[in-house]
Amino acid sequence: MNFIEKLAAAIHKNQSRLCVGLDPNPKLMPRGVGIFEFNKAIIDATCALVCAYKPQFAFYEALGQEGMEALRQTIHYIPANIVIIADAKRGDIGNTSKAYAKAIFDDLNCDATTVNPYLGFDSIEPFIQYRNKGVFILCRTSNPGAADFQSLHCETENRLHPLFEIVAQKASQWNQYDNIGLVVGATYPEELKQIRQNHPKIPLLIPGVGAQGGDLALTVNYGADSRGERMIVNSSRQIIFASQGEDFALAAHRAALTLRNQINLHLSNLNQTT
Amino acid sequence: MNFIEKLAAAIHKNQSRLCVGLDPNPKLMPRGVGIFEFNKAIIDATCALVCAYKPQFAFYEALGQEGMEALRQTIHYIPANIVIIADAKRGDIGNTSKAYAKAIFDDLNCDATTVNPYLGFDSIEPFIQYRNKGVFILCRTSNPGAADFQSLHCETENRLHPLFEIVAQKASQWNQYDNIGLVVGATYPEELKQIRQNHPKIPLLIPGVGAQGGDLALTVNYGADSRGERMIVNSSRQIIFASQGEDFALAAHRAALTLRNQINLHLSNLNQTT
Repeated sequence: MNFIEKLAAAIHKNQSRLCVGLDPNPKLMPRGVGIFEFNKAIIDATCALVCAYKPQFAFYEALGQEGMEALRQTIHYIPANIVIIADAKRGDIGNTSKAYAKAIFDDLNCDATTVNPYLGFDSIEPFIQYRNKGVFILCRTSNPGAADFQSLHCETENRLHPLFEIVAQKASQWNQYDNIGLVVGATYPEELKQIRQNHPKIPLLIPGVGAQGGDLALTVNYGADSRGERMIVNSSRQIIFASQGEDFALAAHRAALTLRNQINLHLSNLNQTT
Repeated sequence: MNFIEKLAAAIHKNQSRLCVGLDPNPKLMPRGVGIFEFNKAIIDATCALVCAYKPQFAFYEALGQEGMEALRQTIHYIPANIVIIADAKRGDIGNTSKAYAKAIFDDLNCDATTVNPYLGFDSIEPFIQYRNKGVFILCRTSNPGAADFQSLHCETENRLHPLFEIVAQKASQWNQYDNIGLVVGATYPEELKQIRQNHPKIPLLIPGVGAQGGDLALTVNYGADSRGERMIVNSSRQIIFASQGEDFALAAHRAALTLRNQINLHLSNLNQTT
């Protein structure tokens, strides 16, 4: 089963487009709870409500060897039917990207990863060559600095287009194995709308709802594809730190249930009006 | 001592602008030699001939836990007077970049790192905040795909400039702590010339000589600053895999000696003609 099929199956089984970001931060976790123990409780509490988990590698790397060991345990623990997206944002010259792809897909056995487009095709190609894996190219990210470069108007074919749109165009051209997606932040709904209109079938990984303030209704209205199978809405802090007390897993369950249902409600409203 | 001072001291002590990339690849290493054992021999053979070492994180991550342990041992083993540049090319939203900076500067104790600019200022700012550490922003990379986005002409202040030049301009504006440098590939000498002309004092980390084919004379002519203290020329495969036999360390020593001396020769020719 390839990435797209696994994603569709998870979406249907759990009736969910929700991805939970597994970004452990000891300062926000209940005292005395270890990283893997925390993730395990979050996974147990939410795995029937999500289509994907997205561990953000930085938070594990910041915790040194112990963190990396917890990342391995977490990936191993996630149920086989749920998509695992390595949020690593890698990208390097071909020779080196090949090693990163090996680390993420072979050694850690993730289903998909995020990659940075700045180095161009040969930096992304080694990831795409894993035809059964998903490759989400950063397009319009959710952070304030995204505008510094991604929104610059750049010349291509004698016209000016925003850089993020050129990235999206290239991504579509490179998508010969149907395993490329785009990362588009919920915090820029107009850009999200534009990208979805121009690329109706490409999978979108959408961070930025919750702590970052993206509007959920707009996100679903603008980000959904016609079948509702190629949109993944990520939330991290809003779910996993819904409570910092002993009831953190129950609180995460409730927050994930609410968000999953809200997404589905917006989707069904959308389908009724179109 | 901050990064710039440490770099200048290493350059003067070893009379060298050479950085050796520590990018272990078991397929190219002598049989039966472990990763750390290999790096240790390379370091012993070259540490009087370099100003910096640059471990490329991908090659360690691709080897799993064993690789990451070898990276830690390698970083620990490098003599204290030599600059350690973490070639990790990280970049994420602010909250996450902070965790990556912690991993690289606090946990691994590297002196500098490479970062990717695509996410803009808030993705780089947490690295810059380590004022004694160096932050090399990818500008014009050495790989073929670099042209895909980095060479696009983008509109800024009502004029069109190549994206890499806008990145360089922004990097200069952000350089309030004098700890930012740029990565510019030796494989694009005209772009290197342009960047050095526009930014005479910014440190340049220049990969792409050797296996990637960059011309060394042009690299030095175009990349050197007026005092020869803010140019780091990286070579990886040409040095560490100079021989794949038992004499690999000796061969690395000879290759590093030759390259160091060639760089200095080009520098002295340059100083005589200007």
